[in-house]
Amino acid sequence: MNSSIIRFILGYVLKTEAALLVLPCLIALIYSEKEGFWYLPVAALCLLLGMLMTRHKPTNSVFYLKEGCIATSLSWILLSFFGCLPFCLSGEIPSFTDALFETISGFTTTGASILSDVEALSHCSLFWRSFTHWIGGMGVLVFLLAIVPLSGGSNINLMRAESPGPSVGKLVPKVKYTARILYLIYLGMTVIEAILLLIGRMPLFDAVCTSFGTAGTGGFGIKSDSMASYSLYLQWVVTIFMILFGINFNAYYLIIFGKIKRALKMEEIRYYLLIIAVSVAIIFLNILGTCAGAFEALTQSAFQVASIITTTGFSTTNFDTWAATSKVVLVLLMFVGACAGSTGGGIKVSRFVILFKTVKKEFTSYIHPKSIKKIKMDDKPVEHEIIRTINVYLITFTILFVLSVFLISFDGTDLVTTFTAVAATINNIGPGLAMVGPMENFGFFSHVSKYVLMFDMLAGRLELFPLLLLFHPTIWKDLFAYKRSVHSLKKGKGVGK
Amino acid sequence: MNSSIIRFILGYVLKTEAALLVLPCLIALIYSEKEGFWYLPVAALCLLLGMLMTRHKPTNSVFYLKEGCIATSLSWILLSFFGCLPFCLSGEIPSFTDALFETISGFTTTGASILSDVEALSHCSLFWRSFTHWIGGMGVLVFLLAIVPLSGGSNINLMRAESPGPSVGKLVPKVKYTARILYLIYLGMTVIEAILLLIGRMPLFDAVCTSFGTAGTGGFGIKSDSMASYSLYLQWVVTIFMILFGINFNAYYLIIFGKIKRALKMEEIRYYLLIIAVSVAIIFLNILGTCAGAFEALTQSAFQVASIITTTGFSTTNFDTWAATSKVVLVLLMFVGACAGSTGGGIKVSRFVILFKTVKKEFTSYIHPKSIKKIKMDDKPVEHEIIRTINVYLITFTILFVLSVFLISFDGTDLVTTFTAVAATINNIGPGLAMVGPMENFGFFSHVSKYVLMFDMLAGRLELFPLLLLFHPTIWKDLFAYKRSVHSLKKGKGVGK
Repeated sequence: MNSSIIRFILGYVLKTEAALLVLPCLIALIYSEKEGFWYLPVAALCLLLGMLMTRHKPTNSVFYLKEGCIATSLSWILLSFFGCLPFCLSGEIPSFTDALFETISGFTTTGASILSDVEALSHCSLFWRSFTHWIGGMGVLVFLLAIVPLSGGSNINLMRAESPGPSVGKLVPKVKYTARILYLIYLGMTVIEAILLLIGRMPLFDAVCTSFGTAGTGGFGIKSDSMASYSLYLQWVVTIFMILFGINFNAYYLIIFGKIKRALKMEEIRYYLLIIAVSVAIIFLNILGTCAGAFEALTQSAFQVASIITTTGFSTTNFDTWAATSKVVLVLLMFVGACAGSTGGGIKVSRFVILFKTVKKEFTSYIHPKSIKKIKMDDKPVEHEIIRTINVYLITFTILFVLSVFLISFDGTDLVTTFTAVAATINNIGPGLAMVGPMENFGFFSHVSKYVLMFDMLAGRLELFPLLLLFHPTIWKDLFAYKRSVHSLKKGKGVGK
Repeated sequence: MNSSIIRFILGYVLKTEAALLVLPCLIALIYSEKEGFWYLPVAALCLLLGMLMTRHKPTNSVFYLKEGCIATSLSWILLSFFGCLPFCLSGEIPSFTDALFETISGFTTTGASILSDVEALSHCSLFWRSFTHWIGGMGVLVFLLAIVPLSGGSNINLMRAESPGPSVGKLVPKVKYTARILYLIYLGMTVIEAILLLIGRMPLFDAVCTSFGTAGTGGFGIKSDSMASYSLYLQWVVTIFMILFGINFNAYYLIIFGKIKRALKMEEIRYYLLIIAVSVAIIFLNILGTCAGAFEALTQSAFQVASIITTTGFSTTNFDTWAATSKVVLVLLMFVGACAGSTGGGIKVSRFVILFKTVKKEFTSYIHPKSIKKIKMDDKPVEHEIIRTINVYLITFTILFVLSVFLISFDGTDLVTTFTAVAATINNIGPGLAMVGPMENFGFFSHVSKYVLMFDMLAGRLELFPLLLLFHPTIWKDLFAYKRSVHSLKKGKGVGK
């Protein structure tokens, strides 16, 4: 394994985090909060470590999928570890486990919180919490690819490991420019949302944090009632932007370059919007009787559907009190998730579309045994390799899900809490039902359960394989070899293989 | 489509049912119950219809998988329809929907009941209820294949449509003899269990009905508390026989012919026993504190694990009151199911073993991208075709499951009830949790929900495709053509296409 390139990437990630940690300090200056002080030493520590790790350029800059996966999962663990330190040091979240849970929940854009009183946090920490969503939404390695001059050309493997969805295409031949375009679209849309929120008289701080949470499909609110106390206009702006951030970013790229027809023809987006429309209609009819009027029912059903399918996790009402059918629809949407290539989590619409097509094909083969038709998506045949990967993905997902539910069950909570706590974290949503409903939090879980859920959040965000690969026995051997290579590097003997 | 052969098979199925319906009449004679009278006219009706339908031999006796599937699913629907009539006519289950539910639950070996007081039924109806389990366990078409001279050689397709598991192998070259061997093993084991129960001083009637319920992995009890009031010896006999009937019958065939080593080497059986051992251990430790002693905890955990994994559904305790972890384990076992080629339902152990192996292979390919290894089962390579079928099966299963949960949710029951009611029927188990727990029944569901659950029971027993195929548009066209062919047949114009 090319461990020197992994070290090099991790170093850059830490340097990036150092830069990002300066922002909450600035917020603390504005609001003159002493909690902001603690972001500085952590930033300095990240910078120091990052500089040490990038001091020597890697001898060999070629890396494969394996290295991409390992670098990605270790990056996210490092990011979360250092990102949670200010919460601990400032005493705002005294327990290290809780602080780490909150930070992983932030970076993975889950939005599940252990805080019972969000509004007690300082502005700088609220900002950092929401900002982690924005960083995690598009991915820190995609960001690195956009700015760091990584030669070698095989860095598509980094993007592949971090980006959601069954297949990653490059928008333009160069990965670097693809990453830059993605981040520009991301930044542009975030700014537009913030402006629209400001027009609706949302305070600047709230508008920025809410836009971060929407853009990354994160869901950390800065108020205890999430979005319930904002005006209907603001709720609709957030609803629409949640849906927009759940769309495959390739569509925006096509639209920007005038290929609107091709963007509108993308099958995944059509199904995504169809699922949203049908779900809103069902819940609208189901809750109509309990709402003050049709418009309120529509607002609430649209907001909650958009929030859950895009895996954002904001809420405007306690949907845990809704009728059974509405709750069933929301639980199903938790697993559906957003489009591939968006900032949303879940299993992704495109995976389901492809799977439905395989079932349809199977039935046809029962009727006409000799017909051999390839499944098509966007008029292109879907390679057998992709179908196989999706199947393996789903099986792995199920295994991890079942194992997590089993481990959490030792806490003795009811089955709905246990089941939806895992569903809400592995799909990076945030709130579940019952004891982890939208008006509750994850604070009551045991430490073991919290670590299981943290693992699920990371595994869900990185789409399982990069993180699970860390548990493959041969990787440990390689990591051991890596330590030795670092050691020999320090002695000036060069980088080992 | 060769619709004349389908008509011919359905006719034979009805004639068989006519013969089977005579048995409850005999029971009624013994106990001098007037309810038994109603079984006679139904038997006569079946005989008459059966004779009409088999009057003309099919012109073409070759049939393919499509015909096999259609014949199988229509057979099961017919069987259930006529099988429920005595319940209605005698007034023991006045509602047709409820009577049909109870009968489908019987034939599909589910064991979910709508009765709140089982003991109020007459002996003949209790016998018929348990006897449907025994018929449905091995399959009525397998029975037909063993006795009816169906030429053509392609009748493996009938067996394939009715037998559980990812692949059906013939034990001996001739399907007819395979079917006979299977039924002989089945009958032999049922008799041995009944004798062992009699030795434990269970009354003869109870022993016969309990053996039917165990052999078919059905689970209809003849007492309101299921098996709770029987002695520990009797509970252990049932536990062991439930586990035995959940084993692939090929193993018994091998054992009978002295190939014990080969039988013991069957991977699926090893994993099946391992899952049972681990589950019993977990639940034993989990419930130890709430039981009177270690032996009681062991008896209860072993009985419930065996009952759920084999999808029998007997119970000796109200496991709905157990701790969360035990309930989670039981819910997981509901989906695991028994071995392929046994009388048990569920997704089947072999499917999971193969899926786990594909995941393992995928991880290896991440580490060593160039390694190409085929998955092996019992030292034989697993064909890609089988893996594909398993994946499609699981996706179809999930779609049907989700759709059912959605439809049931309109009844407004809690999520655990809704979820486990579908799980307990689609996997042919019987009891679920909460409002469908082992001490409850399915009577409170709306008519729509009951029909959804009936569909799930049939779909689960026939492993989805044969039943779902009925909904393929082209099949309706063919059925229409079939009607025409029957019509022309009556006019003496011979059998249509």
